[in-house]
This record gives sequence, C-alpha cells and structure tokens, in this order.
Amino acid sequence: MSDFSNNELTCNDFLNGRVRLWQPRSGYRAGVDPVLLAAAVPATCGHTVLELGCGAGAAILSLLARVPGLQGVGVELQAPYAELARRNAAENEAPLEVVEADLAALPADLKQRQFDHVIANPPYYRAGAHSAAADDGRAIALGEGTALDLWLDIAARRLAPRGYLHMIQKADRLPDMLAGCNGRLGSVEVLPLVARTGRAAELVILRARKGGKAAFQLHAPLILHAGDSHERDGESYTPQVSAVLRDGAVLPGFSSQ
Amino acid sequence: MSDFSNNELTCNDFLNGRVRLWQPRSGYRAGVDPVLLAAAVPATCGHTVLELGCGAGAAILSLLARVPGLQGVGVELQAPYAELARRNAAENEAPLEVVEADLAALPADLKQRQFDHVIANPPYYRAGAHSAAADDGRAIALGEGTALDLWLDIAARRLAPRGYLHMIQKADRLPDMLAGCNGRLGSVEVLPLVARTGRAAELVILRARKGGKAAFQLHAPLILHAGDSHERDGESYTPQVSAVLRDGAVLPGFSSQ
Repeated sequence: MSDFSNNELTCNDFLNGRVRLWQPRSGYRAGVDPVLLAAAVPATCGHTVLELGCGAGAAILSLLARVPGLQGVGVELQAPYAELARRNAAENEAPLEVVEADLAALPADLKQRQFDHVIANPPYYRAGAHSAAADDGRAIALGEGTALDLWLDIAARRLAPRGYLHMIQKADRLPDMLAGCNGRLGSVEVLPLVARTGRAAELVILRARKGGKAAFQLHAPLILHAGDSHERDGESYTPQVSAVLRDGAVLPGFSSQ
Repeated sequence: MSDFSNNELTCNDFLNGRVRLWQPRSGYRAGVDPVLLAAAVPATCGHTVLELGCGAGAAILSLLARVPGLQGVGVELQAPYAELARRNAAENEAPLEVVEADLAALPADLKQRQFDHVIANPPYYRAGAHSAAADDGRAIALGEGTALDLWLDIAARRLAPRGYLHMIQKADRLPDMLAGCNGRLGSVEVLPLVARTGRAAELVILRARKGGKAAFQLHAPLILHAGDSHERDGESYTPQVSAVLRDGAVLPGFSSQ
C-alpha cells in the first residue's frame, strides 16, 4: 500500500479548527469517537502519551491540542496512515512522534519507554476498519477477543506505574475489554456512550490504571444527541458533548482525578 | 444455628401484599433487590425456576406470585432460612420446593434436573450477608471472584438449553460476573440499576442464556428514585419501579423476548 496522493485526501476540522486533519476520502475516517476518547484523558503538562493504532492521528492530535506541554507518540502499522499522521503532526505543530510498527512487535527503544497515558481506539471490525490484525487475516486466526487482549497487554506494558489507559470501543466488546484488564490493570471505570436517553450503549470508554486497586465503576451513560430519533444525528449533539467536540472541554462522566 | 423463634421474626408485605414474608428481625433481610430480580425473569406458565441461595424466599416467591403456573425450587444452605422459606411457601400457597444444601454439593437428584430459569441474588459481602461461603470462612479462602464464579458455574449447569439466568449483584462485581459467564453462558445483557438519574450504577442485573450467541448488550440504566437526593429513598420510587414493586409489573429495560 503506497502513500495517499493528495486527490485521495480531504482536510477536516476537529475541535472547531484547532486540529486540521488530512484523511483519506475512502477507507478509515475519523469521526467523533477519537475526539471523545481524547477528551477523557486526565493528562496535564509534562505528561507523556502513547496512542496505539493512531491512524491519521485524530485522537492524539486532539489531546495534544487540548492540553499544552504533552509529549506524544503514535504507533501505526500501515505506512500510508503513519505518513499522514506525521504530516498532520507537522501541519498542526504538534509534539507527536509517529512510529510505524506492528503492536505485537514494537521497536526495542519503544519497548523500553513507559508513558503516563496510553490511548487506543481499536478497530471495530466493520468494513473499512484498519488494524494490524485485519490486514493480514490474523483477525480471523486470533479471534476478536484475542486481538483486543493483545491491545490491552501492550497498553499495560507501556504504562508507567499509576498511568492511565483510555480505550474507546463498541459496547458489545465490553466483556472482552474487562477480561483483558484482568491481572494487568485496575481501578477500571466504564463510561457508556449512548445515542439518546434510554438507549442501550453503542460505545464505551474504558478507563483503567496501572497498579490501580479501586473497585470497578459503571458510570451513568453520556448522552450524545439531544431530541428524538427523527432529528439528524450530526445536528443535535447535547450541549455537554458539543462543548467537548467544539470547545475542547473535558469529557464529563468519569471520576474526577 | 437453630430455627428462628417467632419473636425473632417479622412479617413483611411484598408486591402490595401478594407475598407475605416472614423474615428475621436481624441478619439478612430482603429489600427491593429480590423483587426487582424476580421482575426481570421472562418466565411463562409451565416453566421451572431454580433459585440459588433463596434465603427466606423473597425473590422466588415474588416470581411465583407474579407468574401463575411455574414450578419453583429454592436452594438454601442455612437451615433456619430454608425452614423459613418452606413456611413462607406454605403460607403463600406457592409451588416452591426448598432444598437445604450447599451450592457446591447439591443433592444428586437436583443435579439431574434442569430448569428453564435460574435466579440468584448472591451475597454482597457486607455485614449481615448470608452465604455458603461466608459462614465457614471460605469467602476469604476462595476470594470473592472465585465465589461468584462458583455461583455462575452451578447456574449454568442447572439451566436447560436456551434457559435464562438472572442475577442481581453490586455493580462493582460486574467484571467478575462477566468473567464467570465466559464459556458457560451467552447473549449476556446487563441492566444497571441507579439510585437517581446521572448516578453511577449501584447494582446490576445480569441476564445470560444457556447456548446464547447474541452480542453483549449494556442497557440504559433503570432509575430507581425520582427527585433529588434530599428526599427519602423509600418514598420516591419512579413510577416504573413502583409498578414493579407494588403491582408486579415486568421490569422494564431488558430486550423483549
């Protein structure tokens, strides 16, 4: 797979234009999920952040834009996306180093580093999703659960003591996510993301802490859209979620730090 | 531990008096949790139901009162509670057989029976909770996770193909509950129970199905209390929950059958 040519790309604004992101017209395109993920991270100036599977960089660039003084590293398997992430980092003047690598075979120097935060938006295994596993057929061989287990294993290994993992994923993968934390990460909290009041969760954001000992918490769902189902989604974010997506507010709903 | 004497007992109404339950004045006393559990079960006439750890019988007697034509079996380790459950079954004219046994050592004839439904409200491991494990110190030896794993193992073994387990438990045990379903039960659904809108889940009801293959579902929370936190709990149930507790309505929030 070669790099994208310019006419295969579009440039999209995130956080009301504080992040401008080149993305492929087709294939995996970042939506609101990486911005919500980034908004959940309680990073402060001086912290280091690793994103597993950063794609074109939407999540980590959102986080770096929201919190000054961070140092970011993004790992991406696919060369064209890694190259896009480098371009996006440069054009946004963001302190992001991009490493082209398979999660299961990180470069030796990266395996010696630990981070205050790890973030990940693993593929949802739907058409167009990109992942280390999907490209070479290993998704089938490993099974989805095993693949997520690998992401959680790598995340736990790269976290510094007391460091936080945040992962966004489809809600139906919650059992696999919790199983993958078992014995590796503690103080697990789950924030369900629901389209509208009263709906089942579509997505969850998992927070877990290296060495954490607190009891598991299942938070109240964050409602993404106001109004009823007849309105168009993109036009009806709740004020809380609008503040996150447009103004770079911290995602409400998790325990305070 | 001998049987309770009458002056150690109180008689309480459940489901607006459709169930009258003798309970000890001190020790474990059933509150709303077993009634909510029973209301989640999609049992219909002719079904068989097994309750693990039935105590004085609040959950299974609520279910037998709500759905005519069921056949119930309750297993209880502690003789005085088993005796109370028998008395409560007789006085409520409920088709309930009570078996005094340790979950880990069920009588041979019970181990040869399978049930359309299994329900359980395992001890929450707080002061006054009753359980097989708590009484002889095995709670500490087994660890809480292992103990819940045993409950789920026994439940899965006693369920007929396509049969349903419903279990109510503190929300912080959700990871253990999901782990205990893994490889035994499928089509897992979780209904969080929250005190008030916007709060974290205090309890969850887990539904799982023997042989189920559907994706995991995390439902919208069921709000127990209306109004703000200054009102007294018992006086402020939401209309939905009042209908369950007083009128024997089906618990809303799970998938329809």
